[in-house]
Amino acid sequence: MKITTNVKSDLQIAQEATMKPITDIVSQLDLLESEIEPYGHYKAKLSLDVMDRLHTKQEGKVILVTAISPTPAGEGKSTVTVGLGQALHKVGKKAMIAMREPSLGPVMGIKGGAAGGGYSQVLPMEDINLHFTGDLHAITTANNALAALVDNHIHQGNELRIDTRKITWKRVVDLNDRALRQVVIGLGGPVQGVPREDGFDITVASEIMAVFCLATDLQDLKRRLARIVVAYNLDDQPVTVKDLGVEGALTLLLKDAIKPNLVQTIEHTPALIHGGPFANIAHGCNSVVATKMAAKLADYVVTEAGFGADLGAEKFLNIKARMADLKPEAVVLVATIRALKMHGGVDKANLAEENVDALKAGMANLQKHIETIQAFGLPYVVAVNRFMTDTKAEVDALMEWCEENDAPVALTEVWEKGGEGGQELAKRVLQVMEKGENTFAPLYHVSDSIQSKIETIAKKVYGATGVEFAPKALKQIAQFEKLGWDNLPICMAKTQYSLSDDQTKLGRPTNFTITIREFRPSIGAGFLVALTGSIMTMPGLPKKPAALNMDVDENGQALGIF
Amino acid sequence: MKITTNVKSDLQIAQEATMKPITDIVSQLDLLESEIEPYGHYKAKLSLDVMDRLHTKQEGKVILVTAISPTPAGEGKSTVTVGLGQALHKVGKKAMIAMREPSLGPVMGIKGGAAGGGYSQVLPMEDINLHFTGDLHAITTANNALAALVDNHIHQGNELRIDTRKITWKRVVDLNDRALRQVVIGLGGPVQGVPREDGFDITVASEIMAVFCLATDLQDLKRRLARIVVAYNLDDQPVTVKDLGVEGALTLLLKDAIKPNLVQTIEHTPALIHGGPFANIAHGCNSVVATKMAAKLADYVVTEAGFGADLGAEKFLNIKARMADLKPEAVVLVATIRALKMHGGVDKANLAEENVDALKAGMANLQKHIETIQAFGLPYVVAVNRFMTDTKAEVDALMEWCEENDAPVALTEVWEKGGEGGQELAKRVLQVMEKGENTFAPLYHVSDSIQSKIETIAKKVYGATGVEFAPKALKQIAQFEKLGWDNLPICMAKTQYSLSDDQTKLGRPTNFTITIREFRPSIGAGFLVALTGSIMTMPGLPKKPAALNMDVDENGQALGIF
Repeated sequence: MKITTNVKSDLQIAQEATMKPITDIVSQLDLLESEIEPYGHYKAKLSLDVMDRLHTKQEGKVILVTAISPTPAGEGKSTVTVGLGQALHKVGKKAMIAMREPSLGPVMGIKGGAAGGGYSQVLPMEDINLHFTGDLHAITTANNALAALVDNHIHQGNELRIDTRKITWKRVVDLNDRALRQVVIGLGGPVQGVPREDGFDITVASEIMAVFCLATDLQDLKRRLARIVVAYNLDDQPVTVKDLGVEGALTLLLKDAIKPNLVQTIEHTPALIHGGPFANIAHGCNSVVATKMAAKLADYVVTEAGFGADLGAEKFLNIKARMADLKPEAVVLVATIRALKMHGGVDKANLAEENVDALKAGMANLQKHIETIQAFGLPYVVAVNRFMTDTKAEVDALMEWCEENDAPVALTEVWEKGGEGGQELAKRVLQVMEKGENTFAPLYHVSDSIQSKIETIAKKVYGATGVEFAPKALKQIAQFEKLGWDNLPICMAKTQYSLSDDQTKLGRPTNFTITIREFRPSIGAGFLVALTGSIMTMPGLPKKPAALNMDVDENGQALGIF
Repeated sequence: MKITTNVKSDLQIAQEATMKPITDIVSQLDLLESEIEPYGHYKAKLSLDVMDRLHTKQEGKVILVTAISPTPAGEGKSTVTVGLGQALHKVGKKAMIAMREPSLGPVMGIKGGAAGGGYSQVLPMEDINLHFTGDLHAITTANNALAALVDNHIHQGNELRIDTRKITWKRVVDLNDRALRQVVIGLGGPVQGVPREDGFDITVASEIMAVFCLATDLQDLKRRLARIVVAYNLDDQPVTVKDLGVEGALTLLLKDAIKPNLVQTIEHTPALIHGGPFANIAHGCNSVVATKMAAKLADYVVTEAGFGADLGAEKFLNIKARMADLKPEAVVLVATIRALKMHGGVDKANLAEENVDALKAGMANLQKHIETIQAFGLPYVVAVNRFMTDTKAEVDALMEWCEENDAPVALTEVWEKGGEGGQELAKRVLQVMEKGENTFAPLYHVSDSIQSKIETIAKKVYGATGVEFAPKALKQIAQFEKLGWDNLPICMAKTQYSLSDDQTKLGRPTNFTITIREFRPSIGAGFLVALTGSIMTMPGLPKKPAALNMDVDENGQALGIF
C-alpha cells in the first residue's frame, strides 16, 4: 500500500503505536532474568547462555520468506515476514520473527526505513533504523581496527612480509559514501605510514558482518575471525588475522554485539533483529545465533533472506542452513502484481495501470522461483502482497494461474491490516508444513569442485545453460585448490533484478550463460564469493538524500525516517 | 601504584568488584522512572527532561580536578577524581562524579583503560573502555554522514559552489590509524565522486565532539550543528551545515547520545560518564549536560579536565564555565612526586630513584599552576597522588614546601585504598570551599581582540613574555574579523608537557614567547582553535599495540584491557 497517498507513513504508524515494555515481551518467553540485558525500555540483548541452557529443547519450525526477482522498490518481503509472524501469533501459535538489522547507509540515502511497514513493522522503528543497539558500529570498529593493525604492522617493520600491493582487507563505514570507494592512504611522508591504494566498503559488505552472522557462538566467532585473510605476503601466501595475533581483540570488540536483539512488532509479537550482511558480497540473512535462538524460544520462526529466491534463499539454503544445521519447514515466496507485470514487459513508470496480459507473461519469473524451491525439496506458499493499484481482473488471473499450476497461494494485506491481513497466509503455511512433504537438502556438496558447484547453482537456480569462467577466475580456482579453499560453499554475487547476470533480462530468461569474472575468498565466513559482474560494495547517495528530510521535534521524537 | 609489580591490574580489580544493579544507584538520586533508560544492568542513560523538571533546584558545588604538567604516563587525575568522589560519598556527602568517556583509539593502542584505576575506578570498566553506550559511535557516524553529504553535494552538481580545495570537514574513526591522516579520495572516474585531498581525525578530535560537549540541550545542539563550517565556496565565504540543510539529520543521529550515561564507581558512588573531546584541538572536558545534570542531582560534583591546568582547566574555566554558566567552587591540582622530579631535571627512566633536590627544583611547575588557579580567583588544594616509589624524604620535602607556601595540600592513596585513601583530600576540599574565598571569573572577555585574548592566556597561564603571530595566523585574524568570528573564546592547542610551546622545556620556563602558527575555527563549538605547533588529531599505534593482549575468556569476560 506504500505507493498510495493519504495514508500514514510507517514512522507515523510506528510512533502512534503503543509498545509494551520489553520485560512484558520477555515474560512470554522461556528466558531467565540473567539472560536479558535491557537497552532502554523497548529493546533487550539476549545472552548466548540461552543456547546452552536450552540445549536439549526441540527446535521450532523455521519458515523462510523470500521473493520473486524484485523491482527496485522491493516487494514488501520484510513487511510480509513481520505480518506472517503476527498472523501466527494471532492464531495462537508461539511464533517469533528473526530479521536483519538495517544499515544506516540506505536509511540516510534513498530507501528510508527497513523494519517492515505499515501495521506489520518492528518497533521502535526509529531506533532499529538508526543506531539500534550498536551492533553495526561494533562491526565497523572491529573491521577498521583490523585495517589499522595491518597498516601499523607494515609501518612498524612488516615482519610478516605483507605485499602492500596485495592487501585485500578494506576499511568500512556504515554510510553511502561513494567518494571513499577508491582512495590512496598513507600519504604525507614516512611518519604517516606506507602509501598504498585502498578503498572503503559499506559495513554490511564487510567479511566481519558475514562472519558475525554465521558464527554459532563466541568461540566459533573467534575461530572464524582468526581465519580471515587480510593480505598476501611476498611469496603470495595468505596472511590471516591469526598471523597478526589480533583475533582476541576483534572478538572482544564483538562480544556484546553477538547477542541477539529482542524487540516487538506493532502487535507485540517477539522479534529478534540481528546482523545484516549484503545479499551480494555475502549471504544476506540475519545471524545464525538469532535464528537458532528464536527456534529455541518459539514453535515457529519466520525469517527472511535478501533479494529474490535466486540470491538470498539460495544462500540461506546452501550456506547458512548447511553451516548452522538448520532445516527450514516451509518457504514463503512473496510476489506483487506490480513486479509480475514488470517481468511481463511493463515499464516501471506504468506499473499502476491494469495489464492482465503482462501479468500472465510475468508469471514465468514466479514459476522459475517455485521450481528452485522445489529443487531444494521444500514446501512453499506464494504470498501475494496486495497493493491498492491491483485490479480484480489481475488478482483473478493470478489466482487462476496458481490453481492451474497447483501452487499454494494466499493474498496478504499485512501492511494495511497487520496480522489480520496475513491470516490466510498463515493458514496455508501451516497446511503445507503439516503435509510434511519436505526432502530438504542443499543443491551441491561442498566437496564438489568449484566449477561444479557454480554450475549447479547456475543451472538449477538461474536456469542458465552453462557457466563461463574468465581467465582470472580460472587462475584463482587453481590457487584456491592449492590452498585447500576449494572445499567451501559458493556465495554468488549477481544482480537481483534478473535471474541471469544481465539486469535487463527480466521475466524468465532462457538460453543464457553466466560469466564468473573473479572470486573474493571469504575464508573467515567460510565461502568463496563468485562475482558475475561489477559488484556494488559501497552505494552512493542520491541527489536528494533522505537525510535532508530528517529531524528531531521539540520532544526528541524522530522525524522523516521514511 | 600502577607502576609496581605484584599488584592486581585495574581490570582484575574491576572484575572482582561487585556492582550494584543500576536501579539501586538510580534510587539514591532524584530521578523519575521515565527519565531512566537502562543499558544492560549496570549502565543507564538519563533523559534531558531531568533538567526541565529540576529547573528551579539549587545546583550542587562543582569541584574541578586538574594537574601539573604531566609525564607521558599521566599523574592519575581520573583516579583522583573518582577517589575524591568516593571519599566525599564516604563522609556522607551527596556526591557525584562527571567524567569523559574514553576513546577506543588509545584503549587499543598504548594506554589501556581510561576509567580511573585500582580501587578508584568507574564500572563496568570494560564496557566504558569499549563501546559503552555507543555515544562515540554516534558522533563518528554524524561526522562521517556530514562528510558523505558534502562530497555528494559536490558530485551532484555543487549548487553551493564549494571550492573542493577548501573543504575543512574531515572524516573520523575512533581508532589510532596513522595511515588515514592524509589521503586522496574520490578516485576511479566520474561515478566515484570528485577526487580531492582529505584526511581522517580520531573521533574525539572532531568538532562534533566539541559541539556535543558544549550543547546545553537538544535544540542548542541543533543550533550549534547548523553553524558548523564545512568548507569555503569559490568566493571564499563559509559553507555551513545549515547551507546543506542537514542539521536535522545530524541532530537525529545524536538524539540518544546526548543523554548522559550513569554508572557507579567501585564503591557505588554515582558517576556520569559523557563526552570526551581532545584537550588540544578541543576543550578536553566532559559534556556540559552531564556536569549540569550532576549538579542538579548531587550536592558535590567532582569533574575533570584534560592534561595540566594550563590546558584542560584553562579551557574549562575560560570556555566551558563561561558558555554553560558554571561556577566551580574549588580546584584540585593533582601532582606526583615522580612528575615533579621530572620537572626538576630527572630523566624519565630514573623517576623511581629518590632525588629530593630534583623534587624541590620541580616544584616551580606546581607553583605556576597554583598561580594560574589563583588568577581565576579560585580556591584550590594540591593532591599528591602517592606512588610506592615515593620516599619519606621526598614526601616530607613536598609537604614542607606546601606549608612554606601556604598551599593547602593532601596526600592521597586512592588507587590502593579507594575513597578511604582520599579522606584527607576530601576534608581539605570541603575546608577551602567553606572559607568561600572565591572570586571566579574567566581571564578575558570574549569582546577582547583575538590577539589580546591569546596574549592574556600566554602571559597569565603559561608565563610567556609575549605572543608571536605567523603571517598565516595574522591573515586569518583579519578574515575572522570580517566574518564576525572574533567574538569567540580561544581554544589553545599546545603541548601538554611544557608550559611553553616547546615540549622539551620542563619545570617553569621563563623568557619565552608563544608562536601562533594558524587557527582552526570551530564555529559550531563556538571557539577559535589557536595552533602553537603541529597538532596531533590522529594518533598512531605503537609497535606492540595493546590490542595484541586483548581477548575474551570462555565466559565472555574481557581480558587484557590494562
